[in-house]
Amino acid sequence: MAIFEKDELLELNSRYRATLINSLAGFKTAVLIGSENSVGESNLAIFNSLIHIGANPPIYAFICRPDTVKRDTLTNILETGYYSFNYVKTSDFTKAHQTSAKYECSEFEAVGFGKTYIDNYLAPFITEAPVKIGMKFIEKIDIAINGTIMVLGSVEKIHFDDNLLSDDGFVALEQADILACTGLDAYYSTEFLGRLSYAKTDCEPKRID
Amino acid sequence: MAIFEKDELLELNSRYRATLINSLAGFKTAVLIGSENSVGESNLAIFNSLIHIGANPPIYAFICRPDTVKRDTLTNILETGYYSFNYVKTSDFTKAHQTSAKYECSEFEAVGFGKTYIDNYLAPFITEAPVKIGMKFIEKIDIAINGTIMVLGSVEKIHFDDNLLSDDGFVALEQADILACTGLDAYYSTEFLGRLSYAKTDCEPKRID
Repeated sequence: MAIFEKDELLELNSRYRATLINSLAGFKTAVLIGSENSVGESNLAIFNSLIHIGANPPIYAFICRPDTVKRDTLTNILETGYYSFNYVKTSDFTKAHQTSAKYECSEFEAVGFGKTYIDNYLAPFITEAPVKIGMKFIEKIDIAINGTIMVLGSVEKIHFDDNLLSDDGFVALEQADILACTGLDAYYSTEFLGRLSYAKTDCEPKRID
Repeated sequence: MAIFEKDELLELNSRYRATLINSLAGFKTAVLIGSENSVGESNLAIFNSLIHIGANPPIYAFICRPDTVKRDTLTNILETGYYSFNYVKTSDFTKAHQTSAKYECSEFEAVGFGKTYIDNYLAPFITEAPVKIGMKFIEKIDIAINGTIMVLGSVEKIHFDDNLLSDDGFVALEQADILACTGLDAYYSTEFLGRLSYAKTDCEPKRID
């Protein structure tokens, strides 16, 4: 059994601790955030912290760390008010990871993702992303304890392949082979186990897919 | 192509919209939060919103929605200051889901997970969980826009199987068959694609696993 107590965690080499605590935080979708500044220079950066905040109205959040190069994304969002979430296929995991390099130019061109604009929306999307979500900035919440920032936005626009959508609104991301990740550098595909009925105390949940 | 614009989203049937927006938020680890009240009555509830806030010191957060039965968890956390995150195996996905039913008694007994206490820690853990994380409450941040609450805690204690740990601190969750999920009712296993080297502008990322 691997055991770490708080005082041991604080004494670890900082890179080791970052790898441990990031990877232990579990599976996430790899989200590529597209944005541009007020003169139309675009940016694309990988995040793994999309958070569902509410469905009515639809609001998602993500976390920006103070010590990352990804602040371009936040600067752009604050400048234009718009950004995009793009989910990519597992076959693109190397390209997705490469967007975290410190490019001077646009990561779209640098790593080789196509750039698409939809309906004059003020943020670019990844052409080949099977799921594209247009977001509009609502507010940022400063997490004082370590300078981290939570960025809240409303879902303005959703585009995804027809065949992912079930009759009840469920989106089967695995059918588009959407990329998942843990920590800062590990990538995963997923395999569907099942959907279960609403849990009640007097019966076992049943498969509903 | 399935397309939803903001005004269409707001007009959807609320259950359909909840299913759409929740499932579209992507893959997460299924996290079972163990807690107990001041008289030792235990609670276990499934969440899918563990968020990495920082590694130095190690801080994780999760989201509590105002409209769920899972407020027992929050009440207990505020009462004792302690809670546990438990990751379970894919083979336990039905039991994990069943913790979301509105039991009067402890979900540990009701759904059939073993309950373990470690070192007099003030929250119970799932005996058979391959990953157990002991958390201590730091603060809650109210998200005013929809009454959602973000709960921040420090990582106090980590227990997991030895063989998941790499030399650099990486925890290979897939080797313990850790359960992932999307939305409110869909469950997944994962398959490892690779870990990639730190991204630089002048070279392709390489596999490091």
